[in-house]
Parts: sequence; C-alpha cells; structure tokens
Amino acid sequence: MKKVVLLSGGIDSTTCLAQAVQVCGAENVTALCVFYGQKHSREMAAARKVAAYYGVRLLEQDIAGIMSYSNCSLLAASSEAIEHKSYAQQLAEHGEGTVATYVPFRNGLLISAAAAIAISLGADAICYGAHADDAAGRAYPDCTPEFYAAMDTAIYEGSGKLCHLEAPLLNKNKAQIVELGLNLGAPYQYTWSCYEGGDRPCGECGTCIDRANAFKANGVDDPAL
Amino acid sequence: MKKVVLLSGGIDSTTCLAQAVQVCGAENVTALCVFYGQKHSREMAAARKVAAYYGVRLLEQDIAGIMSYSNCSLLAASSEAIEHKSYAQQLAEHGEGTVATYVPFRNGLLISAAAAIAISLGADAICYGAHADDAAGRAYPDCTPEFYAAMDTAIYEGSGKLCHLEAPLLNKNKAQIVELGLNLGAPYQYTWSCYEGGDRPCGECGTCIDRANAFKANGVDDPAL
Repeated sequence: MKKVVLLSGGIDSTTCLAQAVQVCGAENVTALCVFYGQKHSREMAAARKVAAYYGVRLLEQDIAGIMSYSNCSLLAASSEAIEHKSYAQQLAEHGEGTVATYVPFRNGLLISAAAAIAISLGADAICYGAHADDAAGRAYPDCTPEFYAAMDTAIYEGSGKLCHLEAPLLNKNKAQIVELGLNLGAPYQYTWSCYEGGDRPCGECGTCIDRANAFKANGVDDPAL
Repeated sequence: MKKVVLLSGGIDSTTCLAQAVQVCGAENVTALCVFYGQKHSREMAAARKVAAYYGVRLLEQDIAGIMSYSNCSLLAASSEAIEHKSYAQQLAEHGEGTVATYVPFRNGLLISAAAAIAISLGADAICYGAHADDAAGRAYPDCTPEFYAAMDTAIYEGSGKLCHLEAPLLNKNKAQIVELGLNLGAPYQYTWSCYEGGDRPCGECGTCIDRANAFKANGVDDPAL
C-alpha cells in the first residue's frame, strides 16, 4: 500500500501523516505540500520539518495562480482581515454556512493534485485531514462527509479504479485528533496552525483557539508553544 | 447565469463554448485554458483564437508542475511516443481500459481549477467537453458518466451548493458534436485537435482520425485543413 498525504504542516495533516507512516512505512508514503497564495509561509516550513522528521519524500507545488481570483481572507492578495474568533463563535454569529476563511474549492483542487500525483507514482490512496469541527455547520463545505464521499467516487472512477481518497479524521473533533496524534507520537512540536504569520502563534484566530482547546482537553501543553 | 468553460482549443470544448455563449451571452462566459505540460502549444494558440472570436474573457493557468510525475505520452517530458491509431483501433487491440494518452486525473484537476475560479468569480456553472467516444471502453475514465456525476456532486457540495458541473456533450459522439457545433456556427477553422505539434495536423493520431471521421459523417470539409 502506497499513499500520498496532503500535508499543510498543521495538526490535522500531521496526524494523517503519522498514521500513514505507521500503516505503510515511511518509504511508501509521499507528502504533498501545496502553496495556494496564503498570507505566510510558516505552514510550509512546518510541513518540511514534519516530513523530515518521518523521513518521507516531500513534494511541493504551487497553485497560487488559480486562487488569485479569490478575495478569501487567508490569501496574501486579499483585502480582508482574518477574524479573531473561534469557529463556534463565528457559527453562532453568522449561522450555518461558509466562513470567510473558506478558500474556494481549495480542498478539491489539492485533492485533485494529489490524485494526479498518486496515479503517476502508482499510489493506491490519498489522505487528507478533513474533520468534524471543520464540517460543522458547513463552515468548510469541502470538509463535509458529502463532499468526501463524492470526491472519493470521482477519484476512483476518474483514475480507472486505481486510487481512493481517505479522510481518516472525518468523524473526529480536534480534541480526538490530538488524542490520536499523541498516541502515535506525532511531532506536534514542529506544526503550525495560526492563520497569521507572526514569529509566534497569535493565540486569537479561530484555529489558534481551537488548537489550544484541543490540547487542553487532552490535559497536555502544546509542544509548539 | 454565469459560466466558466474549460477551453482546450479543440472541437469539443469549442462546441461547449459556442453553446455557453448562445445561452448566457459572451459577457457572462469566462474561458479557462490550462497548460499541463503537453508536447506543444498549438492547442493554447487555438484556444486564444476561439476566445477572441467570441469576445469572451480568457484565463490561462499552468499546472505542468503537478503533471511532472507522469510519463503519459502527451507530455513533453515523456519518453513515450503517441500512438498513431484511432481510439476504436486502440480499444480493439488493448481491450477495455485506460489508453496511453490518458493524463492522470487531468480532467479532475482542470475541473477543480475551474471550480475554484468559478466560485471566486460568482459563476454558477462550469462546462467541460467530455463525450461518449472518450468514455467508450473507459479509455478516458475521467470522461465517463460515473466520473461526471461524482465530480458534479463534489463541486456542488464542496462549493457550499453554489456551483454545478455541466458536461453538455456527455451522451454525444464526435459526429453529433460536430453537427451541433456546425448548427451553432462554432469557429472550427481556429481549432486544433492533433496530438502532435507540427505545422499542420498529422492526420494519423487518434484524435486526427476521429476528427476527420466526424466531419465526413456530417458531409462537410474540415475548415481547419
């Protein structure tokens, strides 16, 4: 079994990678890190450290041109500021629906890039780190079970039945992901989650708040702080 | 209704564009032409002429890096030659299954890029030119009705129910596509189908043979010859 794992350098994708390495062995795992025009490159630096920790091959690609028509607040070219609120708070204020940090069809594009590479390399599966907190209230519609199921079928059919999409964290919340990763010995000390690009995590954006809560729920300190 | 049409510069995508312009008006149609590392740029030059003919906005993107791990015979970096046989002949010789000119998950990647751009531009639909001859025998698995249906669901769900995928030629063969395009006045004189990059179409590759037969079936000369 050979896998291509989408690696952003955050908690979720690092946990996916830890699991893939445990199941397949590092020599059968390729990590794929894609620059899409985000405001900073801290995530990509984190992805390089995580891949190096496991000794897996890391491929880097750039799709920023395709995302250049979006004004999503995560993108460097955007005029929008990133909201400093937890996802739960955003959901409570705005109701169900896509959040301002949704990058248009980003996950579909990353998964499709991973599929093209997986088929080229003879890999059987692609992994991505969608989870239940991202899917809640359809904040990130490209993290929902409905999207996952359709994309898996598209990849299986579109590859000539050679490749599947896996989303091993789909039914877990962030605290459960951290629990799994801690059990797998995932190198969370190298990860980066913050949407801002400062020297240290801002502690105030949605992903910083959710990360802090996930470590707290597991009764451990965040090793990256 | 606003549409993003994937435009390669060949017969199928030019027919899709002709139809989209008729339905929506040129001002509501954006054409997307993507370089993926193919052996020549004749197609892209054709796409520019076709887009200019209709006065639609043309966006160009480059995903050749993502395809650089493939040895598909259509790619410039490939060590494989392009087979000079019709698809029907290839199918008869090799049986069902993917042909050597299948570029791994190319259509999934192009459609995902179109989806990202469509959502960014506020378009409701993406069109691509998959048709029955490409799907036959699963020669191009990313042209089958099964792939199309799954990808449409993935885009609809993954966009937060904002965007659909259309494949208006899905049940037509090449001759029926040319019939439709002739009725729409599609500017076939500007199109390029040949897989080789010579000054004139080679007349011997699968797509040249199929194109010639499609015009012959309609009793007209190919205006590009």
